[in-house]
Amino acid sequence: MKSEIIAVGSEMLTPYRQDTNSLYITEKLNEIGVLVAFKTIVGDRRKDLVRAVRTALERSDLLVMIGGLGPTEDDLTREAIADALSLTIKRDAQIVAALHARAAAWRITMPQNNLKQADLLEGATVLTNPNGSAPGQWLDVVYAGYRKLVMLLPGPPSECRPLFDAECIPRLREIIPPRHIARRTLRAAMIPESQADKLLAPIYTTYPDVETTILAHAGDIQLMLLCGKSNPEEARQRVDELAGRMEEALEDWLYSSEGETLEQIVLYYLGLRQATLAVAESCTGGLVAQRITSVPGASRSFLGGAVVYSNELKTAMAGVPADLIATHGAVSEEVAQALASGIRRRTGATIGLGITGIAGPTGGTDDKPVGLVYVAVSDAQKTDVLSRNFRGDRQRIREYASQCALDFVRRRLM
Amino acid sequence: MKSEIIAVGSEMLTPYRQDTNSLYITEKLNEIGVLVAFKTIVGDRRKDLVRAVRTALERSDLLVMIGGLGPTEDDLTREAIADALSLTIKRDAQIVAALHARAAAWRITMPQNNLKQADLLEGATVLTNPNGSAPGQWLDVVYAGYRKLVMLLPGPPSECRPLFDAECIPRLREIIPPRHIARRTLRAAMIPESQADKLLAPIYTTYPDVETTILAHAGDIQLMLLCGKSNPEEARQRVDELAGRMEEALEDWLYSSEGETLEQIVLYYLGLRQATLAVAESCTGGLVAQRITSVPGASRSFLGGAVVYSNELKTAMAGVPADLIATHGAVSEEVAQALASGIRRRTGATIGLGITGIAGPTGGTDDKPVGLVYVAVSDAQKTDVLSRNFRGDRQRIREYASQCALDFVRRRLM
Repeated sequence: MKSEIIAVGSEMLTPYRQDTNSLYITEKLNEIGVLVAFKTIVGDRRKDLVRAVRTALERSDLLVMIGGLGPTEDDLTREAIADALSLTIKRDAQIVAALHARAAAWRITMPQNNLKQADLLEGATVLTNPNGSAPGQWLDVVYAGYRKLVMLLPGPPSECRPLFDAECIPRLREIIPPRHIARRTLRAAMIPESQADKLLAPIYTTYPDVETTILAHAGDIQLMLLCGKSNPEEARQRVDELAGRMEEALEDWLYSSEGETLEQIVLYYLGLRQATLAVAESCTGGLVAQRITSVPGASRSFLGGAVVYSNELKTAMAGVPADLIATHGAVSEEVAQALASGIRRRTGATIGLGITGIAGPTGGTDDKPVGLVYVAVSDAQKTDVLSRNFRGDRQRIREYASQCALDFVRRRLM
Repeated sequence: MKSEIIAVGSEMLTPYRQDTNSLYITEKLNEIGVLVAFKTIVGDRRKDLVRAVRTALERSDLLVMIGGLGPTEDDLTREAIADALSLTIKRDAQIVAALHARAAAWRITMPQNNLKQADLLEGATVLTNPNGSAPGQWLDVVYAGYRKLVMLLPGPPSECRPLFDAECIPRLREIIPPRHIARRTLRAAMIPESQADKLLAPIYTTYPDVETTILAHAGDIQLMLLCGKSNPEEARQRVDELAGRMEEALEDWLYSSEGETLEQIVLYYLGLRQATLAVAESCTGGLVAQRITSVPGASRSFLGGAVVYSNELKTAMAGVPADLIATHGAVSEEVAQALASGIRRRTGATIGLGITGIAGPTGGTDDKPVGLVYVAVSDAQKTDVLSRNFRGDRQRIREYASQCALDFVRRRLM
């Protein structure tokens, strides 16, 4: 079964906005074994919409159309479907009543143009939208001799997504032969993408029935495995078998077998060891702390830390001796170590993390180029330090440095 | 002139990856007065590609096709264009020579399948790609009686974008009547989106020749104005006039008249006042520091600060009296003030910023619900505090809190 998603809205044809609903819908369609063959983005022009719908019906069996169901003159999805399929439109008394009830509940007078949302296509099933005023519509029609399933969904993600889950997926499950999907996400840190691919390609290519997607970003690699079978155990087994072989190949680059983020894993190990962490960040400027505290419940193991951008603060807040900075420079192995051990002592944490480097774009020298980063981890026994030369712009260097630092803590905890 | 962008690649039909090149290409097309009417995303299947190309040629005058020019069997863009336009393909001796030269420069043996990238469509102009091995191609053809411009570009953003700028834009400028684009971006902080629209819609709707796009995200509103005219001064004047009226309406919600970010503006005012800033963050966990230090050169005015997640650290690093926390609770006006004045004194900064709140999802009470945030700004003269109740998930509350805090500093500096 070939499916197509049309996202409707002129704003998505500007340089500023992107359709994101289709990613969600794609994931849900994949889960029931339906692949997406085309995505189209089209503006709020009736003629263009009709063209896009006709094209979709000619090349696809299932059409999900998102947006253009609101009350304004620009909302033309209903009209476009009516034109393309030669259907009539009738105002539906039940939807009108629901619109009035909704306005009454909100204690507002309903604007007259809101009634447009009660326009129902001939033969359509209403998909009740609990999160907004425009209901969806479901059509099961014949076009040019072929059966076509057409779903009209409102554009706001908070309406579109729950409506698709609640109203479309169950209907599709009744029509489409059952298929069971098993998934796994593995994650690895700081392994170069090319090296990961060299290690893994010989493995995953021997599992053509498992779809493997590799996403790489600033020292983080995600491997998403997906397998659909009529037998649920078989799907599960294939995914687990491939995941097991990949885990083995990735050795200790692998940090997560079930999709957890690196900051979640670090917090998990801290909890397990009943340890606490504090950080002293220079070049990452709070990024590591921010990543850790983005996890709910981080306060159980994360005490906090210092953002020590100036040399004075390195001394005042993390106890780095001023003469150490004078001798070795703020970006040095010695200062990274002093940051880690200093913040540990100042805060009473089990583990201290220190980061110093040159994020750029200026401030580099021949000896210490932009991208040079030192990371140190300190506990009561010892302080380890590593240095890296990251490439890229300021943002990328900071992201790499934060990833490298979190991974260094993870390795210490393992 | 109607244009269409086709992004080629099966990975963009998964839930994990999105086409982003089209945003860049759209911006560049808009600048020369060409609007995008359709965007299509299609996988690496020859039949689907041919369909997509035919559809595009039927409904658009200008087609930019991105991706599918590489050396693998999955790279089928050239073949699809040949099928759709009934063109032959010939291996081009000059491109072959360039591929050999490239391999020699990299000291690698060229794999035989790389030669596929030398396949040139009948009548096509080669668009030399200095950043990769696959050249682009430019076609100026007649399809079903109409002139069509077709551009084939490689998929990697680092190749696609410079190639479009260097090779396509100049050619398009020669063909398309000149049009001059003026732009402005205004930004405002912490004004509710509905209120901004109420204030601004009556203004911008009277400038139909200026395209106004409003983007809102976590307390930040961006207004992008764009006007294209044959006369450059007229375009500039219309944009500036509308911008001026909007600035007036936004009063002191407005923080930027030329698109600068809030953190850039805060750093700008700090520099102007020869002031320095230090922050003590609890619920935002480093997010404010991270935002400020994302700006190159932040070190001139930003000293650093403390991420004081635990109560002990609030006392140890920002000098908040322990009994103040015991009496009022860590999330209170008093503690926010003590964080701001404490971090100011500890660091010697001109201005201290303190933030405490409940980011959730747990930890809220009837008195102090999730989303309650206190922000305080302290200088030698006085300490001000404000409280807000933000809605949303943990991430959203933290984003709002960081925006609110930076805006509070901006207002103090103004």
